[in-house]
Amino acid sequence: MTLDPVLSRLDSDLSAATNRLFDLLRIPSVSTDPAYKADCDAAADWLVADLQSLGVDASKRPTAGHPMVVGHVEGDGPHLLFYGHYDVQPVDPLDLWDRDPFDPALEETDQGTVIRGRGSSDDKGQLMTFVEACRAWTAEHGSLPCRITFLFEGEEESGSPSLVPFLEENAEELTADIALICDTGLFESKVPAITTMLRGLLGEDFTITGPSRDLHSGMYGGLAMNPIRVLSNILAGLQDDTGRITLPGFYDGVPELSDAIRAQWQGLNFDHETFLGDVGLKEPAGEQDRTPLEQIWSRPTCDVNGIWGGYTGDGFKTVLPSEASAKLSFRLVGTQDPDAIRKSFRTYLESKLPDGFTVDYRTEKGSAASQMSVENPAFEKALNALSDEWPDKAAYIGCGGSIPIAGYFKELLGMDSMLIGFGRDDDQIHSPNEKYNMESFHKGMRSWARILDALTT
Amino acid sequence: MTLDPVLSRLDSDLSAATNRLFDLLRIPSVSTDPAYKADCDAAADWLVADLQSLGVDASKRPTAGHPMVVGHVEGDGPHLLFYGHYDVQPVDPLDLWDRDPFDPALEETDQGTVIRGRGSSDDKGQLMTFVEACRAWTAEHGSLPCRITFLFEGEEESGSPSLVPFLEENAEELTADIALICDTGLFESKVPAITTMLRGLLGEDFTITGPSRDLHSGMYGGLAMNPIRVLSNILAGLQDDTGRITLPGFYDGVPELSDAIRAQWQGLNFDHETFLGDVGLKEPAGEQDRTPLEQIWSRPTCDVNGIWGGYTGDGFKTVLPSEASAKLSFRLVGTQDPDAIRKSFRTYLESKLPDGFTVDYRTEKGSAASQMSVENPAFEKALNALSDEWPDKAAYIGCGGSIPIAGYFKELLGMDSMLIGFGRDDDQIHSPNEKYNMESFHKGMRSWARILDALTT
Repeated sequence: MTLDPVLSRLDSDLSAATNRLFDLLRIPSVSTDPAYKADCDAAADWLVADLQSLGVDASKRPTAGHPMVVGHVEGDGPHLLFYGHYDVQPVDPLDLWDRDPFDPALEETDQGTVIRGRGSSDDKGQLMTFVEACRAWTAEHGSLPCRITFLFEGEEESGSPSLVPFLEENAEELTADIALICDTGLFESKVPAITTMLRGLLGEDFTITGPSRDLHSGMYGGLAMNPIRVLSNILAGLQDDTGRITLPGFYDGVPELSDAIRAQWQGLNFDHETFLGDVGLKEPAGEQDRTPLEQIWSRPTCDVNGIWGGYTGDGFKTVLPSEASAKLSFRLVGTQDPDAIRKSFRTYLESKLPDGFTVDYRTEKGSAASQMSVENPAFEKALNALSDEWPDKAAYIGCGGSIPIAGYFKELLGMDSMLIGFGRDDDQIHSPNEKYNMESFHKGMRSWARILDALTT
Repeated sequence: MTLDPVLSRLDSDLSAATNRLFDLLRIPSVSTDPAYKADCDAAADWLVADLQSLGVDASKRPTAGHPMVVGHVEGDGPHLLFYGHYDVQPVDPLDLWDRDPFDPALEETDQGTVIRGRGSSDDKGQLMTFVEACRAWTAEHGSLPCRITFLFEGEEESGSPSLVPFLEENAEELTADIALICDTGLFESKVPAITTMLRGLLGEDFTITGPSRDLHSGMYGGLAMNPIRVLSNILAGLQDDTGRITLPGFYDGVPELSDAIRAQWQGLNFDHETFLGDVGLKEPAGEQDRTPLEQIWSRPTCDVNGIWGGYTGDGFKTVLPSEASAKLSFRLVGTQDPDAIRKSFRTYLESKLPDGFTVDYRTEKGSAASQMSVENPAFEKALNALSDEWPDKAAYIGCGGSIPIAGYFKELLGMDSMLIGFGRDDDQIHSPNEKYNMESFHKGMRSWARILDALTT
């Protein structure tokens, strides 16, 4: 048996693996904030050194933004590309964290031991599950079972601006038989999953300007139009009373579920009242004629991620502000066209601006949704390997998040992707107190060992 | 002649008076921010010392908040109470100031010399016009022409929380024949004014909470209700398409203008296109069936003074926030009842909250509108005195701002108030780069000398 000694070594090496992950988690590699540029660089260096310690030919590769880490090991059998990202989300509001986000620690909870810290689940903990599986395999067998290319990105949380040019420039080097992407979750704690449906993402970050300066509301109030009122009207008009998004053409390219997928989802034990109740909510907010799973996996959305304008400090200031700003994101599905939707949104927004108002847009990015082709036999092998490791049978699922990398791999490198990850819904991956269950970390490594075995024998 | 030598001394002493004002402007007495508590105290001390130098029996008087300054001089004839406030507005956004807000300076502009700095117009520069008139009078005649009580408050920009209890506790000491309040403006640069109609103010500062923590919009987006969306809907629903405020009962107690006032206002040379055009706006925003002067002087309003929620830093964060917050203010007129309107607003807001959402209110203050009784002969005397000083005839006008002090004087001390000030519309009193025209400062002092003369001969 080639697999059993690798699994045993992963079990006995778990503490050391946890310490290695802690070293990586201590590096505050927040990609969206220029203040952390050197830290992103340090995280890349750390990964290069760690891969080199496994015998991987690894190097840091410059981009216009944060660097990529690329590594190669040669071998027979299928050529796999493994992708993860070493950058993490911002940590604010910092006062809601129970500890320093970059001083990771183990905590005992009613779900068992968890690793607490920014990036523990998204995505440093996840990417290290694969690295640790490779480390154990190499230690037991002297080499990996097949040719593997490693690709670690440092801008995933910033919309991956350097990724497309990097894939284009290095297409030959990076094209493999199939990609493995570890940035998704379990379906639930006992049910592993391969995500085959991903929503796309379109962001809009903009400021509306009305008066040329802040005004005193006593002097101008009632006569001068308030940009916050204009912005509120714009945002309020984006959805109708049934939760449907009102932009003309928005639903072009939104597919209906196939009967097979609809039946499979109905069979999944998804309790939306518990899902919402766990975060203090009661009512589903999306389109009223869609099931909760459709709302998060297969329907497009519009959310306001941030809003600001006027006086926000302590006490009162009767100001009529010059500006109001918002950050919006649309989750896209099917063949919805990000460019067409951006155009429709901007046309709508500008139609709502009073004469004399202006708008300044700060964003230009968007990515379409992805759908994997599960006909590739690797999917079935990986699904079975996951079922062997976890208590319940593995499932093909959708995901509300956007991981455009799978679309880029298909489009630019002609490569299918298997999205396999071990996060849980309550990992708080973009919130304070992010965590990764020790079970996810441990069984994640073991899952990858099983998948490597399944794909190469 | 008692007046002429006083006017001459005010002319020759102008530079020294300006330097005294600069000393006061250098004290950053921002009352709304606890960080400036010691500075508010220092401004009160400065005023006590300055009044004492005029022979006024002045002292700093503690309150639950920032101190009052009270001073007395005895004399024959009418007993006047003069009111001003030594606290100033916050200065943010600081980066929009062309200089340190608390390092005042003279600047030459196309309107002549101006005094630049926070508080120059609102209200330190204005209150010093009266103090300087008293200084010159005392210097020329050895004493003031009548009994005068000085009352300087340090919480006007914070809604005057200590004022009512202070007036109640010291009613006998503070009650005079008439109050003079210097915190308003000219009608226009050549036209002085007595403000006889003031809007009231009701503030609401609140936070809506939905999810118990920030959520990842990829995981929850579409299913979890977003508090910013809820807040936008609440704010957007406050006004209808014609600019009318939709709260039930909101217009109860809003009077129509008398024919006389309507005729007088139509005679005023108010060009709303220029008024709005000067601040980069084109369209009036208020009730479409009301004239622009009605919109700012005699109609109630609702403005959002601040809004915040979610991620507002650089770049993107696909967060579905737990909270969204806003600060609103309503300007009130006639006999609108602040308590009834607050209740109507909160009923409306809470009716819009999805099941499971909560709201936390941080405000409890409100003041009704005021209307002065111009039958008191002091009004006519002061109006004529103003007409003597300025190029054009003085007018009785309305004011969009809220100066509840006049209402308190009437209600608690049975005293009429004359609101006379020399600010201009473009003083940017709650904005960056606040200024006070040197002409306002100089002719303001001279106006008070004339008014003192008119009221005592």
